[in-house]
Amino acid sequence: MTDSLDTPGVPVPADQQEREAEITRRVLESFGDCTDPRLRQVMQALVRHLHSFVREVRLTEQEWDAGIEFLTRAGHITDERRQEFILLSDVLGLSMQTVAVNNEAYGDATEATVFGPFFVENSPEIELGGDIAFGAAGDPCWVEGTVTDTAGKPVPGARIEVWEADEDGFYDTQYGDDRMAARAHLFTDSEGRYRFWGLTPTPYPIPHDGPVGQLLAATGRSPMRASHLHFMVGGPALRTLVTHIFVRGDEFLDSDSVFGVKESLVKDFRTQPAGTPTPDGRDLGDRSWSRVRFDIVLAPDGT
Amino acid sequence: MTDSLDTPGVPVPADQQEREAEITRRVLESFGDCTDPRLRQVMQALVRHLHSFVREVRLTEQEWDAGIEFLTRAGHITDERRQEFILLSDVLGLSMQTVAVNNEAYGDATEATVFGPFFVENSPEIELGGDIAFGAAGDPCWVEGTVTDTAGKPVPGARIEVWEADEDGFYDTQYGDDRMAARAHLFTDSEGRYRFWGLTPTPYPIPHDGPVGQLLAATGRSPMRASHLHFMVGGPALRTLVTHIFVRGDEFLDSDSVFGVKESLVKDFRTQPAGTPTPDGRDLGDRSWSRVRFDIVLAPDGT
Repeated sequence: MTDSLDTPGVPVPADQQEREAEITRRVLESFGDCTDPRLRQVMQALVRHLHSFVREVRLTEQEWDAGIEFLTRAGHITDERRQEFILLSDVLGLSMQTVAVNNEAYGDATEATVFGPFFVENSPEIELGGDIAFGAAGDPCWVEGTVTDTAGKPVPGARIEVWEADEDGFYDTQYGDDRMAARAHLFTDSEGRYRFWGLTPTPYPIPHDGPVGQLLAATGRSPMRASHLHFMVGGPALRTLVTHIFVRGDEFLDSDSVFGVKESLVKDFRTQPAGTPTPDGRDLGDRSWSRVRFDIVLAPDGT
Repeated sequence: MTDSLDTPGVPVPADQQEREAEITRRVLESFGDCTDPRLRQVMQALVRHLHSFVREVRLTEQEWDAGIEFLTRAGHITDERRQEFILLSDVLGLSMQTVAVNNEAYGDATEATVFGPFFVENSPEIELGGDIAFGAAGDPCWVEGTVTDTAGKPVPGARIEVWEADEDGFYDTQYGDDRMAARAHLFTDSEGRYRFWGLTPTPYPIPHDGPVGQLLAATGRSPMRASHLHFMVGGPALRTLVTHIFVRGDEFLDSDSVFGVKESLVKDFRTQPAGTPTPDGRDLGDRSWSRVRFDIVLAPDGT
């Protein structure tokens, strides 16, 4: 993998290269009066890398048109419930790269992964041991664990947001009404422990009826995400963790469409035959269920 | 100007660099099954350059959020009459870079510049010597010249599209109705000559009431464009030329917001006092007018 400024397939004459470099220089200079040094740095770097891209691939005007048209369609399909630009960032691995840059490894802190487009504010609060389903369909899944800091000290009162797709692969925001389902928040107890009933995660495609789906199809990529359950966990003076847990054995672990899978986040979801006594005595009748343990370690804030 | 893969202000530990590089590798590999080699090349290059950008500037999650939000707003302000993504490409110099890559110098062929967001299909046809104003306000400007190929041979019947802003800086597409004004097309005569009445160009800001305008304001940049008149000229077996001519002496020649100015395209618009006889005998009463000559040279198609 190289990242040199100009590696076109056809040699570009030196005077032509100079004309192209001159355009880039003029654009970089135009940001010279920006009084916010960070904004100047970000914009100048963005310009350099995008110009390098155009010059390296010798982008045609038809391809430029196609790019404008792609962004326009992404903008028009995006609304309060659908975020095509996040999907685009996700399938280009830009979301995971940003996660990686902002969540450098710290001791044995739990690894982060993509946020995704399906989080919503103001989820319902549940008690410890409560059920996040609120009517969403799926096999019940008992989820339990602890929240500790990297010194191993339990974090009482840590806020845990959880959200996931139902067994048909849809989040509540895709139902088309204002229901909240398969999402909730809860708090750890005085010893940093948590437990709740969720749904056993199943694989699903990211929304692929828009331009991002067309891009995946045109490039021979699958829209499928490996089965997962989303977490966002925070506590006082601790770095907020945004992550998922994945299901060991899932067929899409090696081809997750948003590159979210990390080995440390793959967990054993143990299937329990119907009739197996539940941890909290809940009667599930003739339904099978599963259980998983996820112990969460939070890095200090500012790391 | 450097373009190395990682030049952050703070050194990034080697194991962290490796984790980040691994994400990029996985994304590049995901395009390995793309059966269109050009699409694969473009997407892999885009991924490499965008990942390099994120890693180099250590893009924060708040900045990523701001980027998603910016694109979302750009998408929502874009409609049939307003194209914020073209404006964005223009102010980042990506449009000019694409023009440069696709219009390499060929003999003394006239240089190209940005297309801009204001061209529309199906402009009215005018006779040689006709007026493109159709009611748009501004000082009359007599424009004349020839269209030849790079061997100096006149191009009869060359199609010339011209369009420009009125004296208030607005194109017809910004009037909010369906009028066409200050735009037309005409054809050269049997000796490759053309002539028409346009409007003396005046400087104007690009539409800056949207996210692109906010970006320019935040970075201390002006939205002003140097005064210009758009041309698109094509003929049989010739490369279609998209360009402008600029007004010598204009105050924004050195700070054009879309980097469109090239010295070879700056022309003398000679002001004529009221009462000066016009080339075609048109009676302009007590109005002053201007005149400019623009001889156009088209490169062969496929160059």
